[in-house]
Amino acid sequence: MTIQLDGTVVTTTMRTPGHDFELAVGFCHTEGLLPDGVPVTGVRYCGTGSAVETAFNVVTVETGGVAPTPTPRLGTTSSSCGWCGSDHLDELTARLTPFDEPDPIPFEVIRSVPAAVSQHQGLFDATGAVHAAAVFDRTGAIELVREDVGRHNAVDKVVGALRLADGLPVEGRGMFVSGRASIEMVQKAWAAGCSTLVAVSAPTALAVTAARRANMTLVGFMRDECCNVYSPERLPEGSVPAPR
Amino acid sequence: MTIQLDGTVVTTTMRTPGHDFELAVGFCHTEGLLPDGVPVTGVRYCGTGSAVETAFNVVTVETGGVAPTPTPRLGTTSSSCGWCGSDHLDELTARLTPFDEPDPIPFEVIRSVPAAVSQHQGLFDATGAVHAAAVFDRTGAIELVREDVGRHNAVDKVVGALRLADGLPVEGRGMFVSGRASIEMVQKAWAAGCSTLVAVSAPTALAVTAARRANMTLVGFMRDECCNVYSPERLPEGSVPAPR
Repeated sequence: MTIQLDGTVVTTTMRTPGHDFELAVGFCHTEGLLPDGVPVTGVRYCGTGSAVETAFNVVTVETGGVAPTPTPRLGTTSSSCGWCGSDHLDELTARLTPFDEPDPIPFEVIRSVPAAVSQHQGLFDATGAVHAAAVFDRTGAIELVREDVGRHNAVDKVVGALRLADGLPVEGRGMFVSGRASIEMVQKAWAAGCSTLVAVSAPTALAVTAARRANMTLVGFMRDECCNVYSPERLPEGSVPAPR
Repeated sequence: MTIQLDGTVVTTTMRTPGHDFELAVGFCHTEGLLPDGVPVTGVRYCGTGSAVETAFNVVTVETGGVAPTPTPRLGTTSSSCGWCGSDHLDELTARLTPFDEPDPIPFEVIRSVPAAVSQHQGLFDATGAVHAAAVFDRTGAIELVREDVGRHNAVDKVVGALRLADGLPVEGRGMFVSGRASIEMVQKAWAAGCSTLVAVSAPTALAVTAARRANMTLVGFMRDECCNVYSPERLPEGSVPAPR
């Protein structure tokens, strides 16, 4: 699906159809293209023809032309090195405000999240092939779950749903992802206001660095009710288990 | 890392550094940019500056200018729908020759592959964060393993290593991938001559369709010594277990 912002192509992603408008809005939001004061005035399909493949694979997010212009970093065919870690980190730090001193979500809550989210992973149950992302609160209640063949898309769909409901930034919430925690995952959780990110699999080094800059709690390998905590660097006493 | 072919940008990928030349050559090969008769006359870093981030993140594959020109499909910022499945399938079928009637690798061999490959997954052992791809023969011998944070990159590194050693197409070999089997995985295995693809996780519907067109044996969910066989549609009697 190709995502456009006020008619300009932002990116194209291989996605699981469904919640397409959320995906488009979520991607734009997490990339900083829908900052405070920029309204989403409309979202629509703008493909041509009647075939499903062409009619429903281009989505435009409209802001009346007040959104910032997408930068070349969003593409993957540029010859510049905009994807290298330091540039990306600097861009995030310049755009997003670190969280205040963390008020960690209790470990008993965090370890309950994977099983709770799994109750909503209908596509995964049917196929074994899709990732999930979810937002949960301090009690472990699962507020929103989205599934997609791409793990980034699942997060963008969650963020887009919140944005379209005027629910951003969230506060005191955690983001759960069923795969690895890359810097993009930290970026997306950060942009949504989630001060905790819980991943079933490993984080990358860049993700850890970004989470620490964000004052975000980053939990990885959250499986079998055990986990590693990668950020903050020093754990609040008694709040989380020692890394294994 | 940005991959160029005769100085033209082909794509940019987030990769685990190492085996960079293999990655560049493998990607170009699996995209059909290094067909029969197109020699790889050189591979080199062509970044500028002395910092690691800039000096070693651009690689050019050289063919003396005889390689085909990269098509826009390779980028992700095009507004055309080149990524939609039917286009992609048609392109593969036009470019690659289906395998002859399969001579399946015995199931006893296939189910031994994940454990055998795991002996070579040093980066995964250390980090839990990277995928692996491997080529194995009909006896289950693991001939080549590469690891990368991106599962596509791991396969491209394997294919590139074979191409640089004048080892393509392989014959009677299988490709193992530690994640899901997308159409890109089928494409890469097909382009390398692997008539069997074994994936630890699920295939996508497009991957199944592509594998059937290729006469490729596609095995998914290869874990705990069980698996599903998705292609061929009818299983050769006695050669593989019934899907669970």
